[in-house]
Amino acid sequence: MLPQFRVQQDDAVMVSGDDLKTTVAAVLQKMGVPEEDAELGADVMVLADLRGVDSHGVSNMLRSYVRGYTSGQINPRPNMRVIRETPSTANLDSDRGLGIITAPKGMDLAIKKAKEVGVGMVTLGNARHLGMASYHAMLALEHDMIGVCMTSCPPRVLPTFGAEPRLGTNPIAVAVPANKEPPFVFDAATSSVAQNKIEIARRLGAKLEPGWLAAEDGTPIMEEVDVPETYSLLPLGGTRELGSHKGYGLSCVVDILAGVLTGVGYGAVPGRPNFGHYVAAYSIAGFDDPTHFKETMDEWLLMMKSTAPAPGHDRVLVAGQPEAEMEAIRRVEGIPLHQEVVDFIHDTCAELAIPCAF
Amino acid sequence: MLPQFRVQQDDAVMVSGDDLKTTVAAVLQKMGVPEEDAELGADVMVLADLRGVDSHGVSNMLRSYVRGYTSGQINPRPNMRVIRETPSTANLDSDRGLGIITAPKGMDLAIKKAKEVGVGMVTLGNARHLGMASYHAMLALEHDMIGVCMTSCPPRVLPTFGAEPRLGTNPIAVAVPANKEPPFVFDAATSSVAQNKIEIARRLGAKLEPGWLAAEDGTPIMEEVDVPETYSLLPLGGTRELGSHKGYGLSCVVDILAGVLTGVGYGAVPGRPNFGHYVAAYSIAGFDDPTHFKETMDEWLLMMKSTAPAPGHDRVLVAGQPEAEMEAIRRVEGIPLHQEVVDFIHDTCAELAIPCAF
Repeated sequence: MLPQFRVQQDDAVMVSGDDLKTTVAAVLQKMGVPEEDAELGADVMVLADLRGVDSHGVSNMLRSYVRGYTSGQINPRPNMRVIRETPSTANLDSDRGLGIITAPKGMDLAIKKAKEVGVGMVTLGNARHLGMASYHAMLALEHDMIGVCMTSCPPRVLPTFGAEPRLGTNPIAVAVPANKEPPFVFDAATSSVAQNKIEIARRLGAKLEPGWLAAEDGTPIMEEVDVPETYSLLPLGGTRELGSHKGYGLSCVVDILAGVLTGVGYGAVPGRPNFGHYVAAYSIAGFDDPTHFKETMDEWLLMMKSTAPAPGHDRVLVAGQPEAEMEAIRRVEGIPLHQEVVDFIHDTCAELAIPCAF
Repeated sequence: MLPQFRVQQDDAVMVSGDDLKTTVAAVLQKMGVPEEDAELGADVMVLADLRGVDSHGVSNMLRSYVRGYTSGQINPRPNMRVIRETPSTANLDSDRGLGIITAPKGMDLAIKKAKEVGVGMVTLGNARHLGMASYHAMLALEHDMIGVCMTSCPPRVLPTFGAEPRLGTNPIAVAVPANKEPPFVFDAATSSVAQNKIEIARRLGAKLEPGWLAAEDGTPIMEEVDVPETYSLLPLGGTRELGSHKGYGLSCVVDILAGVLTGVGYGAVPGRPNFGHYVAAYSIAGFDDPTHFKETMDEWLLMMKSTAPAPGHDRVLVAGQPEAEMEAIRRVEGIPLHQEVVDFIHDTCAELAIPCAF
């Protein structure tokens, strides 16, 4: 998913991460979520906001999670069960628990296994929305491990040459610790562009970039046109000539590892309204001295950032860097929320008879 | 890497896979490679040819491997050593052995570990060219495992916004077994397009597609122009608008897992003329009943292949399908080799005083 650096607007209300977290945790508790889980879920949502990944933060997700709990589609007190297990693997039944709360638990298990045997790899079936994939991957960092997270989502993306969506936006996140530098944190959908970028373009009346979407019949739209009424997303690459078979193939890998491997289906199974998750932790000490590795990562990150920029650009970024920079700002200045979002949270708190911290 | 379905040409000589393999193995033995290793290396190269991945087959690679052995750059009798090991991980020193021979051995170790504890993950530093990455990933299939292979290569690809190559074409291969259907086999560079596709375009005088290359100053070339004298490759996605930061990030992941994690450097380390490899095997039985999994994979593969095609296309393909179809043909009809390649092999055999099987 793409960090969405919200332009500071006149109507934005600045809310501190702590206040937002307290309030969101209270809302989740009112949904029936146990206190500790509610705090975890709030932490996942608010960290997305702090890191500038607003698409997976409170403003974009809380409404849908509240709806899911209220309708009974999400289970607030899931009974997570181990279906299969080996020293380095496990497959868990999420019992319809929300991914923002179940995936960190899956990752904790993966980390425990990686401590014992070097690698831990855990799938979670019967799952609900994951939130920001990199949150779960980043849990590995403090243990001197590389963290990986993927999720198989409902179909929105066309296979190359296809006219019917068969794959979700199926993101891949990988987090790698460094020493003094901020960690490498990659987190991206395997589609050409994020769904919400399209809807933002529609709202703003902006033109589409060529290669962002396919028309209803599956033909990639290669002109700068208005956002059409109905469309499908294209896999990363856009067209076959530009390598969309690679984006398509990577999306398939996610659908297999986070979907098929759970034993309860993949993104395009008819009538499967849920998600499947995959988390893994690789202990660096299983390959190299962690101190040496992290020092080499510093060197590698600095090498990448110091690449001479192409004309029209002032610097080269590396995955995780813009998010770390945004987090440093928002931890001080707060998170900008649209008045509309603030109103929704205030209304929700009033309805649920809980205090709002802002 | 892209399967290069060679157009049958008048000057092509059809050679059986077995004859080609026998001859290549004899050449490798004359380079000082032990008999068993020579047969393994020949098998890797010839399987690439059989599957239509000519870019990594005999015609494209043998000359460079012979040159590497002759110059001493590749060690024909490497002493592979375990640097670090846990129940599920190992880091090996390849001792300058050719990847087509050392990577299958790394994968054998990964498979052994996956049998014991669920996952096996092995890095190989101080390495030489990998050959077709999917060969090594596919070794996991017969053990009811998912196979993964990556390689960190010397820099040719720009970071997004950058003007200097910092990353190799850094391919990712993933192989997943099915029941009756051919396996899912993904194998692709994380660059927008393969280097040899550019050189083919230059030879044929064909125009570049927009988004294939960057000019010398790093600016992506977005017009249909002739192949420029000097250029860099772009990461998958081509431009930032089309998601090149995703291709760039995935390439970084490969450089970290197959490069930094080996403890002996990454693709862009100055003066590092070598490669780093990463292989992994995930035991399906660690997550799901393998029979159930493989039956679901059949269903998944058929679902994907039966996607209604977009206008102008007659069918939707899935990764590994075109290669399996080509392999079925070439195992019967033989491998088409250009007369020039046949001449090179004949000359080499004559120089080395070994018989050529065709």
